[in-house]
Amino acid sequence: MQTIRLIGLDPGLRHTGWGVIDVSGNRLQYVGDGSVTSNAKGSLAERLRQLHDGLQDVIGEFRPAHAAVEETFVNKNPISTLKLGQARGVSLLVASLNDLVVAEYAPNAVKKAVVGTGHAGKEQIHAMVRMLLPGCRIANEHAADALAVAITHAHNAAGRGAGLRQEALSR
Amino acid sequence: MQTIRLIGLDPGLRHTGWGVIDVSGNRLQYVGDGSVTSNAKGSLAERLRQLHDGLQDVIGEFRPAHAAVEETFVNKNPISTLKLGQARGVSLLVASLNDLVVAEYAPNAVKKAVVGTGHAGKEQIHAMVRMLLPGCRIANEHAADALAVAITHAHNAAGRGAGLRQEALSR
Repeated sequence: MQTIRLIGLDPGLRHTGWGVIDVSGNRLQYVGDGSVTSNAKGSLAERLRQLHDGLQDVIGEFRPAHAAVEETFVNKNPISTLKLGQARGVSLLVASLNDLVVAEYAPNAVKKAVVGTGHAGKEQIHAMVRMLLPGCRIANEHAADALAVAITHAHNAAGRGAGLRQEALSR
Repeated sequence: MQTIRLIGLDPGLRHTGWGVIDVSGNRLQYVGDGSVTSNAKGSLAERLRQLHDGLQDVIGEFRPAHAAVEETFVNKNPISTLKLGQARGVSLLVASLNDLVVAEYAPNAVKKAVVGTGHAGKEQIHAMVRMLLPGCRIANEHAADALAVAITHAHNAAGRGAGLRQEALSR
């Protein structure tokens, strides 16, 4: 059975989490995780470039075929929403520039896929990520969130009949 | 006197306007303008890549040393703010990846620099852009807004004592 490599991304201007898993049919295997950090003292343009360069390195190292990006929680604070939007634009762009298949998942969809309910807490999600990916180290909470998005994509794409294998072949 | 080339950018997901001018001391010269458009039927990742590719072409063709980016108007609609943030992230990132000096200006600062008051209407700004840049063609309103940001940067950088020349030399 063909193995497809996915990267999950949890975008943020300060920290963008990433998590890589391999999927073979229903089987998930942990590959790696971490986060890319931008220097809060830098200008916005510099910070976005730091995120770009860091994600570019990660994608270059692990060479995933698909990216799953967490949909931004639309904050009540428009300044925060804007910052998140800018960071999220970089995550989506880097995935697209590397010719990855890109999917987006709302936070509720991630919770539902990983824990089974749309109202799970962070702790519950992280505990399930550890159970679903034996041997994972999980660098930090951003990485854990990114792994959760990757798991969500594995479940959703597999559930869409054709599955990841077909999608990858038809690219 | 050294001539510095600036690009002004007015980010938007559907249309990102751009305008290039040359600055020698107090003299401004129109070079070119236009807009990069993303296909509304594409995925967000594809659209951000289209903006990236288009801006990359423009910067590759005109080789500006500085970029001036309009600060996003923080909309009351968070979905619009998020979209704008994503497009804006691409504008800032492409400028940064090409090693341009990047400055950001709030809409009010642009109005004040171009028209003399922070409460000018679009029409008034576009009329002043045409007066300040004789011979400009102005492709559309996004391009006009981008030229206005470029003019703002020329005025502000010149007013900061050192001016554009020193800044460019010290890069």
